[in-house]
Amino acid sequence: MERVDLAKLLEDVRTGAISAEDAQLELLRWPFADLSFARVDHHRALRQGMPEAVYGPGKRPEQCAAIVRELLANGTGPVLLTRADDAQVAAALATSPDGTVTGDPGGRLGALVSWRRASPRREVVTVVTAGTADLPVAAECRATLEAYGFEPTLLADCGVAGLHRLLASYDVLASSDAIVVVAGMEGALASVVGGLVGAPVVAVPTSVGYGASLEGVTALLAMHASCAPGIGVVGIDNGYGAACAVARMLR
Amino acid sequence: MERVDLAKLLEDVRTGAISAEDAQLELLRWPFADLSFARVDHHRALRQGMPEAVYGPGKRPEQCAAIVRELLANGTGPVLLTRADDAQVAAALATSPDGTVTGDPGGRLGALVSWRRASPRREVVTVVTAGTADLPVAAECRATLEAYGFEPTLLADCGVAGLHRLLASYDVLASSDAIVVVAGMEGALASVVGGLVGAPVVAVPTSVGYGASLEGVTALLAMHASCAPGIGVVGIDNGYGAACAVARMLR
Amino acid sequence: MERVDLAKLLEDVRTGAISAEDAQLELLRWPFADLSFARVDHHRALRQGMPEAVYGPGKRPEQCAAIVRELLANGTGPVLLTRADDAQVAAALATSPDGTVTGDPGGRLGALVSWRRASPRREVVTVVTAGTADLPVAAECRATLEAYGFEPTLLADCGVAGLHRLLASYDVLASSDAIVVVAGMEGALASVVGGLVGAPVVAVPTSVGYGASLEGVTALLAMHASCAPGIGVVGIDNGYGAACAVARMLR
Amino acid sequence: MERVDLAKLLEDVRTGAISAEDAQLELLRWPFADLSFARVDHHRALRQGMPEAVYGPGKRPEQCAAIVRELLANGTGPVLLTRADDAQVAAALATSPDGTVTGDPGGRLGALVSWRRASPRREVVTVVTAGTADLPVAAECRATLEAYGFEPTLLADCGVAGLHRLLASYDVLASSDAIVVVAGMEGALASVVGGLVGAPVVAVPTSVGYGASLEGVTALLAMHASCAPGIGVVGIDNGYGAACAVARMLR
Amino acid sequence: MERVDLAKLLEDVRTGAISAEDAQLELLRWPFADLSFARVDHHRALRQGMPEAVYGPGKRPEQCAAIVRELLANGTGPVLLTRADDAQVAAALATSPDGTVTGDPGGRLGALVSWRRASPRREVVTVVTAGTADLPVAAECRATLEAYGFEPTLLADCGVAGLHRLLASYDVLASSDAIVVVAGMEGALASVVGGLVGAPVVAVPTSVGYGASLEGVTALLAMHASCAPGIGVVGIDNGYGAACAVARMLR
Amino acid sequence: MERVDLAKLLEDVRTGAISAEDAQLELLRWPFADLSFARVDHHRALRQGMPEAVYGPGKRPEQCAAIVRELLANGTGPVLLTRADDAQVAAALATSPDGTVTGDPGGRLGALVSWRRASPRREVVTVVTAGTADLPVAAECRATLEAYGFEPTLLADCGVAGLHRLLASYDVLASSDAIVVVAGMEGALASVVGGLVGAPVVAVPTSVGYGASLEGVTALLAMHASCAPGIGVVGIDNGYGAACAVARMLR
Amino acid sequence: MERVDLAKLLEDVRTGAISAEDAQLELLRWPFADLSFARVDHHRALRQGMPEAVYGPGKRPEQCAAIVRELLANGTGPVLLTRADDAQVAAALATSPDGTVTGDPGGRLGALVSWRRASPRREVVTVVTAGTADLPVAAECRATLEAYGFEPTLLADCGVAGLHRLLASYDVLASSDAIVVVAGMEGALASVVGGLVGAPVVAVPTSVGYGASLEGVTALLAMHASCAPGIGVVGIDNGYGAACAVARMLR
Amino acid sequence: MERVDLAKLLEDVRTGAISAEDAQLELLRWPFADLSFARVDHHRALRQGMPEAVYGPGKRPEQCAAIVRELLANGTGPVLLTRADDAQVAAALATSPDGTVTGDPGGRLGALVSWRRASPRREVVTVVTAGTADLPVAAECRATLEAYGFEPTLLADCGVAGLHRLLASYDVLASSDAIVVVAGMEGALASVVGGLVGAPVVAVPTSVGYGASLEGVTALLAMHASCAPGIGVVGIDNGYGAACAVARMLR
Repeated sequence: MERVDLAKLLEDVRTGAISAEDAQLELLRWPFADLSFARVDHHRALRQGMPEAVYGPGKRPEQCAAIVRELLANGTGPVLLTRADDAQVAAALATSPDGTVTGDPGGRLGALVSWRRASPRREVVTVVTAGTADLPVAAECRATLEAYGFEPTLLADCGVAGLHRLLASYDVLASSDAIVVVAGMEGALASVVGGLVGAPVVAVPTSVGYGASLEGVTALLAMHASCAPGIGVVGIDNGYGAACAVARMLR
Repeated sequence: MERVDLAKLLEDVRTGAISAEDAQLELLRWPFADLSFARVDHHRALRQGMPEAVYGPGKRPEQCAAIVRELLANGTGPVLLTRADDAQVAAALATSPDGTVTGDPGGRLGALVSWRRASPRREVVTVVTAGTADLPVAAECRATLEAYGFEPTLLADCGVAGLHRLLASYDVLASSDAIVVVAGMEGALASVVGGLVGAPVVAVPTSVGYGASLEGVTALLAMHASCAPGIGVVGIDNGYGAACAVARMLR
Repeated sequence: MERVDLAKLLEDVRTGAISAEDAQLELLRWPFADLSFARVDHHRALRQGMPEAVYGPGKRPEQCAAIVRELLANGTGPVLLTRADDAQVAAALATSPDGTVTGDPGGRLGALVSWRRASPRREVVTVVTAGTADLPVAAECRATLEAYGFEPTLLADCGVAGLHRLLASYDVLASSDAIVVVAGMEGALASVVGGLVGAPVVAVPTSVGYGASLEGVTALLAMHASCAPGIGVVGIDNGYGAACAVARMLR
Repeated sequence: MERVDLAKLLEDVRTGAISAEDAQLELLRWPFADLSFARVDHHRALRQGMPEAVYGPGKRPEQCAAIVRELLANGTGPVLLTRADDAQVAAALATSPDGTVTGDPGGRLGALVSWRRASPRREVVTVVTAGTADLPVAAECRATLEAYGFEPTLLADCGVAGLHRLLASYDVLASSDAIVVVAGMEGALASVVGGLVGAPVVAVPTSVGYGASLEGVTALLAMHASCAPGIGVVGIDNGYGAACAVARMLR
Repeated sequence: MERVDLAKLLEDVRTGAISAEDAQLELLRWPFADLSFARVDHHRALRQGMPEAVYGPGKRPEQCAAIVRELLANGTGPVLLTRADDAQVAAALATSPDGTVTGDPGGRLGALVSWRRASPRREVVTVVTAGTADLPVAAECRATLEAYGFEPTLLADCGVAGLHRLLASYDVLASSDAIVVVAGMEGALASVVGGLVGAPVVAVPTSVGYGASLEGVTALLAMHASCAPGIGVVGIDNGYGAACAVARMLR
Repeated sequence: MERVDLAKLLEDVRTGAISAEDAQLELLRWPFADLSFARVDHHRALRQGMPEAVYGPGKRPEQCAAIVRELLANGTGPVLLTRADDAQVAAALATSPDGTVTGDPGGRLGALVSWRRASPRREVVTVVTAGTADLPVAAECRATLEAYGFEPTLLADCGVAGLHRLLASYDVLASSDAIVVVAGMEGALASVVGGLVGAPVVAVPTSVGYGASLEGVTALLAMHASCAPGIGVVGIDNGYGAACAVARMLR
Repeated sequence: MERVDLAKLLEDVRTGAISAEDAQLELLRWPFADLSFARVDHHRALRQGMPEAVYGPGKRPEQCAAIVRELLANGTGPVLLTRADDAQVAAALATSPDGTVTGDPGGRLGALVSWRRASPRREVVTVVTAGTADLPVAAECRATLEAYGFEPTLLADCGVAGLHRLLASYDVLASSDAIVVVAGMEGALASVVGGLVGAPVVAVPTSVGYGASLEGVTALLAMHASCAPGIGVVGIDNGYGAACAVARMLR
Repeated sequence: MERVDLAKLLEDVRTGAISAEDAQLELLRWPFADLSFARVDHHRALRQGMPEAVYGPGKRPEQCAAIVRELLANGTGPVLLTRADDAQVAAALATSPDGTVTGDPGGRLGALVSWRRASPRREVVTVVTAGTADLPVAAECRATLEAYGFEPTLLADCGVAGLHRLLASYDVLASSDAIVVVAGMEGALASVVGGLVGAPVVAVPTSVGYGASLEGVTALLAMHASCAPGIGVVGIDNGYGAACAVARMLR
């Protein structure tokens, strides 16, 4: 995948292949489209090799639809609408009808809608959840991984209160190229998985649990204080971010 | 109560009573049932002597119902569905109709539904609350204790602002084998009860109170900072957990 | 062990076995000795069956020494001086020389000095630590348990980053009447132990760890948010309190 | 006690008793003395009927000495230097030698030095502490009360883990015109005292305790969440402030 | 107002005026009525000289009604139902119809319903608010003070962003026997009022404000850190508690 | 703009141009109008050169309407009603119909209604947002700036994850007299803008984001910890306050 | 003051005034000097019109000295070394001897050393402190302002507990072009000053105070929750940052 | 690298290649050495492909030395002693003399001592710091990466307040296989780097900064709230953990 080359742009100016005015224009205008309420970053796919993503909350339905349409019209890679409420999903599908709705539609996290899918990847990615209640976050993560071309394996409900449930899938863990651990409450599953295998582990604290769970802060802190070294943690309930972290690792 | 014996399993392999493949299979499959969205831990009753419990929040009603049915079909002990909303209660009772609904149905905590009851226990367990508003948490605790076979005594509204209300029941406290103290606001009742008797005290901070109560965090911290030594604290509003702690003590 | 009987005292007044003035005097004066800076609670051993304990921090060395001496002179059970600095230890031993110094003398927690020991107990108590750095807290816990008459087993450095280290001692855990889990960082060991066995588990968060450990607050929160039900948590670094909780359970 | 009378000042201007320029000058200059690094408030004694107090921390010794000297030279009431370290005490006594050193000299809180004493007050003020370690805070409170002319009674070490130690002094509490409760750890003593009597209760959380005590924050929150109504709370370790609150009540 | 006299009770036992059994019975039963879900404290009015108060949240409407009825039937002083929602108000008025509804009915705080009023008091109590949005808390405070027999003056909207609004009422402040300051946001009004007058100041932080107000925690902390000494602080939005604190001071 | 002159008032008293009684009356009454539930500060426009603003939350619709009407009737400058809900907007417009509704009507922040506009200002003010979801806060800021007479430029969606979107508008930033940066999540845009230009930067943290965003607290803390010196931060979501800060700077 | 002109650089490339290679080199190397451990930003003075500043903490003395030397050698404006300990001050003065040491040498904040001074500015800047203990922060602010060419006025010890001390200097405040308010404890002074005048107010919370001051967090939150609109807040104890904010405003 | 194979062990039991008793013994004893105070995990190198690491804090010097010696004697890979104080370094080098001391010896973090080095790796790893004060954390990270066989590039002092310093090294970033971003204060560098490149980014918040930096908590939260997706965050100051995360990714 080619990248923006500042030196080449300057060289083109020197050789006259492009005028200085045009170069400046290109540098400033090309990488995004200004929709007045949003500066759509067409440059990201080139720069990062990531799908374009539109974060729903705080945007009006028609804004979501317009940004999605702009991204689909001016690129060829996957496009995602994340954390979308029903009105946002409806508006986006009305103008860009072939999207797939997954995630947690109508639920706590909202829907993830995806258009187009990257070419298939052969690396093995596993998503493990501590409990059934962590599944919406895992769903967001899986759908994002699928947009990237992965076919992740899901191991649900492997919390450490019944270690044998996790150990029974030791082979799956041991053969993974990357593992996403999705856990709320005390988040101990990340430490245990991180201690069992040497693969990269991305830990996603979830807001599942009550009382001392503090809406996921406890799990976030615990994952950071983990006695198993080398675990990377993403934000609370951030299944999308965890998938992006995996995609960065396995470029 | 017999326990899983790893040494015996290995011995059976050695003697040919079981093949290595079968042993591995048994080790991996036997202790839980994989419902794809949940790994139901049939092993827990053997391992811990506790009722099977399904934590409702975050699970879809049909998931709750399926896990309860699986637990009832593959065990003989009590089964609990905790913190359930109305739809979860309805779904679970639709497939497993002989459950008893208690706890705080329709309220802040949700319902606790129980199926089957352990054989009666003769130890004396007392549940004391600081105020009337703590009763839903106490109800969750009592229902769990009853599933374990206990017949707990409830002393309601004994907060330290009127000490005589507590001291009037001193005899009940002094003759208890275990005491659960349920208190919100500043949680001082735990210190006072812990200072009065030598029985094990399980303190449950509740989210009752406002302002500086910080949704129960103040009571939790205060119970941990208690000047009465040897109080074990469980999570905020966790009446179920307190009952489990008592059950562990009085096995 | 007999307890204070309010009804009997009143009955004695009625029968003239004791005058009302004397009864009131007895009720008010008998249970403690007023040293002006401290009201030494001679009643606690009767009321709770616990050793007398003097908490060092904030007391002047001569105050520690005087309270210890008072407790030794007016009782027959064990006496403990906890969290003592060098000057407090020296002052206490100068007037009550046959004390045993354990704990963490000169260290973060300070020394635990004990005089006299309760008659031997036969229940099996195990103290498990996640790391070597948790040993000072475990030492405070063990010394307190020994004052109560127990002979606790110590399993050091069994953190979940290397699960096999813990599983290798599964038999010890499974045969324990009570288990104290001492863990800092993310405190995940409590959940794992609580999930493995049905014995009562007392979890002690420690201030071991850095960054997101927040001086033990992370471990405390994580232990409360544990997915393993029925764990009782005591305060940060409170090895003494954990031992008292065990003593309450195994009266 | 007379007060500043804005109307009279304006009337004096009108009648020519004072020129407008002089009135403005008086209004601006009279109530404080500008020492460049401090604006010494000579007006406070008139306005509030309180002793002048100099808060030590952050001031250089010679600054402390100069402010004290200024206050003694331009007033007739008590003067206090609070939270002073050894150098500040020495500097202040060097220039104003007849001060009395109390509080916690050389300790956590530092010394309280007082000069002059208000005329005796006959109201009964009681200071109760939960433990011996709370005594330095109580000492700061007592010394301030004495500067105000009170003769407070001290009840030390009445924590709720041994309620009878408090109840034995019920008569003292019941006959008090104001009660200061000094308690760290979980601060439950404030609730208990507030529930026993109807006198005004000023609660002082202390930073005594460890782990979940959070340097006094736990006690502060717990006192605010108290189930006993009408308790006024002051800042952590603020024995001086509690005494001022009592003085306001009993003017 | 007479108080419970333990010595007298014991003397009556000695003289035979009452049997020991009856004395014990009286001691245990007399001060409260056990409604099973509540232990109604008939003793509080004697002990503290305060109105009986029922805290609404967490109680079922019929529980509120029953406790109010019990208090009215067995006492002669004022009775309050605080923080009541519409159903609780309706239930209480259905069985005890002559109550007066004030406070914040249907609003954030809920209603305060009062029955009977204490005999008139002549002390001057002033309630000052920083803004109009603090009025519901002030209303709860005023209604409670009126139940106690006071006729408080209300000064609304005197926040420090326009100091002249406060200074214009300096005479009212200067002639008050007690002042309640109700302020959200940064709570600076308490410091300013505390610096202006020597009367007792009870500060009530409110949850008014947004962003960094943290639901009143900022105001609570700021009031505790006040540079004006001797301010007693009560819990967030606790207008009822502030009134009780005033009543304690002005007994 | 003239200011209140205390010296002149006193001089007028001296010369008899005004009697002392009248002077006192003027001093006390003139600067505000007492509507009983609000003390409307007519003095602010003179004192600060700012529009009059009425903060909606916590006020009843008719209170909002009355204060707005009072301000319009007794001044000539702009009047704002901020954070208003639909009922408050309707009530205010019913009595003062020529207001303009902007901000976030019906949304998270509520509407900003403005009446009258200050004379045009020629300074260049730019409002930059990190994302589309920050636009409601920017809208409140812009509408306030417009009431002050400014014509702010809006640069939307310039977050640092795509730096070129910001750099493309470098010229706009470099020619601004003041810049308001509106950013949620990690708030990094403030540091980047503050590092690019020397103009005054007012940073507004927003509550946009989830999980570790902690309702805007993370952005607020990050903006304060910024490595770019000289950034002034206002409260979370406080677009109104940011506009006021700009107005103070550009008087 | 001229600024970096990207368009001109590109034009120079087109005309051959500079080769593309050289242009790239200039773009990359010119604005900073790479000392391996630091990238010294020679560009900042051009870009922001601010003095160069070296933040001491965490740097080795020789690193501080080398960066200062580099800045002095390659620029003509003021250079500051902030928060320096004694060793850092000594090392910097050894190689660049004509620096002036101010701030809080040897104290909590450390020294501020300045070399060269900008040309004099005629705007009036006032620094107000709430107490004497806030003076070290004010000293850091003043020294930075002086490096910028200002001659700030200091008003010390004007806390709101004695409002007349502040009001006496009302004329100074009213004639200021910018005001820095330095206050710890509850930080109320910022609200009062912000309410009195319309000039830009930069508020600096300080870590002065104890108990509920939470090392300055209380003052920071309170200043953000201020009822006086348009106050810009900088970080705790950040006198340097406040001066930079003033310099941005008064460019 | 071969891994432990549970199936093979069971198969060996079946074929008689190993007896059941021996298999159990091997399973339990082989992976660690019990030094009584530590269970040294010889299994980790096989399981995770990571160097053995001994965390210094809380261990006595002789304990550190013994664990290091045990690891060196029973393995062939790199061994690290992290966060060691001078006494720990001396003790470890006394018994295992050929260690290399790096990190932050005698400083805030302590030393990192390494023995043996893994075979060279060809992947490109870059460590970027926001400031010079972040270098000790970067040093810990680099030394750990070197033990793994990497030769990381260090880019120091590239904070976002001078973006050109970072952009000048864009080529280095763009050609990296993994990037570690080390930043304190507001941690914005992670978002900017994450937005510029698609490589995996591991963010390390540091405790550098003051006031609102909250000892690194602000940077940690900000990195989690980053608007650049797919950043993995490790604990505060955890340079060692970041290196482990990189090693996991690039196995």
